[in-house]
Amino acid sequence: MMTDQLPIQAAPSEGRRGTIARLRQRYETELFEHVLPFWETHSPDDAHGGYYNCLSRDGTCYDATKYSWLQGRQVWMFSTLYRTTEPRDTWLQCAEHGLSFLRNHALRPNGQVFFSLTEDGAPIYQQRKIFSECFYVMGLAEYAHATGRDDLLREAHTHFEQVWAWSKDLSQVGRPRHAGQVDASSLAIPMILLNLIEVITDGERTPYQSEIDACLKRIQHHIDPDTERVYETVRPDGTRIDTAEGRLLNPGHAIEAGWFVQHWAQRLNRPDLQRQAVQMVRWSHATGWDDEYGGLFYFLDADGYSPTQLEWFMKLWWPHCEALYAHLLNYALTGAEQDWAAFTSVHEYTFTHFPDPGYGEWFGYLNRDGTVTHRCKGAPYKGCFHVPRTLWLCGQLLRRLEAPPSD
Amino acid sequence: MMTDQLPIQAAPSEGRRGTIARLRQRYETELFEHVLPFWETHSPDDAHGGYYNCLSRDGTCYDATKYSWLQGRQVWMFSTLYRTTEPRDTWLQCAEHGLSFLRNHALRPNGQVFFSLTEDGAPIYQQRKIFSECFYVMGLAEYAHATGRDDLLREAHTHFEQVWAWSKDLSQVGRPRHAGQVDASSLAIPMILLNLIEVITDGERTPYQSEIDACLKRIQHHIDPDTERVYETVRPDGTRIDTAEGRLLNPGHAIEAGWFVQHWAQRLNRPDLQRQAVQMVRWSHATGWDDEYGGLFYFLDADGYSPTQLEWFMKLWWPHCEALYAHLLNYALTGAEQDWAAFTSVHEYTFTHFPDPGYGEWFGYLNRDGTVTHRCKGAPYKGCFHVPRTLWLCGQLLRRLEAPPSD
Repeated sequence: MMTDQLPIQAAPSEGRRGTIARLRQRYETELFEHVLPFWETHSPDDAHGGYYNCLSRDGTCYDATKYSWLQGRQVWMFSTLYRTTEPRDTWLQCAEHGLSFLRNHALRPNGQVFFSLTEDGAPIYQQRKIFSECFYVMGLAEYAHATGRDDLLREAHTHFEQVWAWSKDLSQVGRPRHAGQVDASSLAIPMILLNLIEVITDGERTPYQSEIDACLKRIQHHIDPDTERVYETVRPDGTRIDTAEGRLLNPGHAIEAGWFVQHWAQRLNRPDLQRQAVQMVRWSHATGWDDEYGGLFYFLDADGYSPTQLEWFMKLWWPHCEALYAHLLNYALTGAEQDWAAFTSVHEYTFTHFPDPGYGEWFGYLNRDGTVTHRCKGAPYKGCFHVPRTLWLCGQLLRRLEAPPSD
Repeated sequence: MMTDQLPIQAAPSEGRRGTIARLRQRYETELFEHVLPFWETHSPDDAHGGYYNCLSRDGTCYDATKYSWLQGRQVWMFSTLYRTTEPRDTWLQCAEHGLSFLRNHALRPNGQVFFSLTEDGAPIYQQRKIFSECFYVMGLAEYAHATGRDDLLREAHTHFEQVWAWSKDLSQVGRPRHAGQVDASSLAIPMILLNLIEVITDGERTPYQSEIDACLKRIQHHIDPDTERVYETVRPDGTRIDTAEGRLLNPGHAIEAGWFVQHWAQRLNRPDLQRQAVQMVRWSHATGWDDEYGGLFYFLDADGYSPTQLEWFMKLWWPHCEALYAHLLNYALTGAEQDWAAFTSVHEYTFTHFPDPGYGEWFGYLNRDGTVTHRCKGAPYKGCFHVPRTLWLCGQLLRRLEAPPSD
């Protein structure tokens, strides 16, 4: 989604435009001076290729295991920056470094991608899911765009089509079927596929219109306008499942889904979908915000039971990253004060709690009251992705919002 | 392990014997009036058989999924109470209720046991591990002892031998092997097998001497006397693995392993093993205790990195249950004041934080500062097991300790 195509409705006052300009500078400083240098300095493994993912507060590697989700996402991030921000050779080299490692070691002949590998690329674990594959394709496609490598883009299309087929029947990637399993639809799958089509097709005419429609329809099944909630798991027809899994809410995830949908609402020029995407973000924020300590809960149970996840009450960096961009996008598209207020409250919470001025990057995990529980900057599920992606997305959008009105 | 066979060394003063008598009464009241009635009232599913596991604070079922670990453990608990405490018909019926459900629905023709099932017994999930099988055999064997059913005991032996074979090669239960996997030995496996042999053989001459020796040797590989630590995962030769997994400490688990080993040290009359078991408990308590807020951390990293587990700082009920009995057993066998002090501090923390006087049973999950994070009493990994087991074990031992010296 190129921000310059968005039909901005917000008309901030001159005073707010000043605020927006300062925020934009702050986001850019954070991205280019505090976040990217952390990963550029500490993550590349020059000896074996790929990136170290498990990095302590100061960047020391505490575990040399390499995680494909994070490798693919970092390839995507550096390729994106090279293509959209500035064609720095070091950024392209950084992307290439990760992509080669994935192609040499993680990618299997059948198109599956190992979830984790040793420092030198021997496979450790294969998930019976499709996410490692999705993040590989995300990195591959963006690198292909950044370098103009049509051969790699064709490969990305081929892989995507394979992943699409698997997504309809996970038994093909080894997921067993048992008689008592609920026929359940997970929000994560149409979300990631929709985002992947956005990356692969990059604003061009897409051969995947029916797939996009299918993803949007599947995501809509998770939205319940009556309760103003977005459920993680529903039956394929959108009906509720009365188990802890069926009542699970993941507000940050639903907010992320909101802006994924919004990008397609804009590209497809569908006002109905734009309204729905705005609501997904607003509703999930209202449900997920902790009125006592601030911040977004990680998980909630829709009926108020204690979630079975032990970490439900924690405040994680990535839901806040997603919320920053999603609320700012809402504000840009609606001009509504409630969206600006939501963005501001997430901004305040986020910048008060997550960035580490001492060593760069952000802490990832806080207790409910906002105290840091984990000093690490990189971990099996935290890499060079959510923080720089939101700083990059918000930076672009803030730049458009700070411009004086054209009329 | 029958407590009346223990060579008690502790010689508590008359004053302390009064304290011990009051504690014994408290543990028995807690067990018989506050804990068992909760499960007897709320867990049996009279319509479909088996037990409901996911129970809210007041006993309401919030998810009808049935978990085999918890079904098997509850069969063991009620069979044990029937056999050792009082032959109440309702206890035996309760045990039989769970065992029938497991045999009718969870047990597969090849001896594997489904991990989770629907309310009416349709299989949902099969772990690629051996724990569901172990807890099934544990329940089956104890029920066989309680009822004198030699046919069921023979079945338990047959299943145990199958599980033993699988434990040496988990690829036989579907665990894939990949080239980069470290050849790792998990403390959980020799622990559970050792405990299972104790249950199956029940103080009788055992046909499993070589298996016992193998389990003890494997557990000893996890103990590092230099650092006074018990590692969760080591190489099969006991050498360290330099990853987050290899540095992982689970103090409650190591404490539980300590008393499992101690029971065999007593039964085999091995003073060397007795000393080692005492140390496992003392060291793990010293490592795991939170000096700031009290209680035992769930996970720690041996080198002081932040553990990768999000919930590492939480205080769970079961490590405290294990610590109560392990310290009391240490005290009984050594008479050392440090063991009494450790028992007392765990007792104070536990009884201040976990029991729920409102509805019975104990809360399972606390934040680092001791506040309750989950109101549920039953959950996918919390059932009728650790709380009643420790109250039953401690109750017996306190009864021996409160008796006046015989000389």
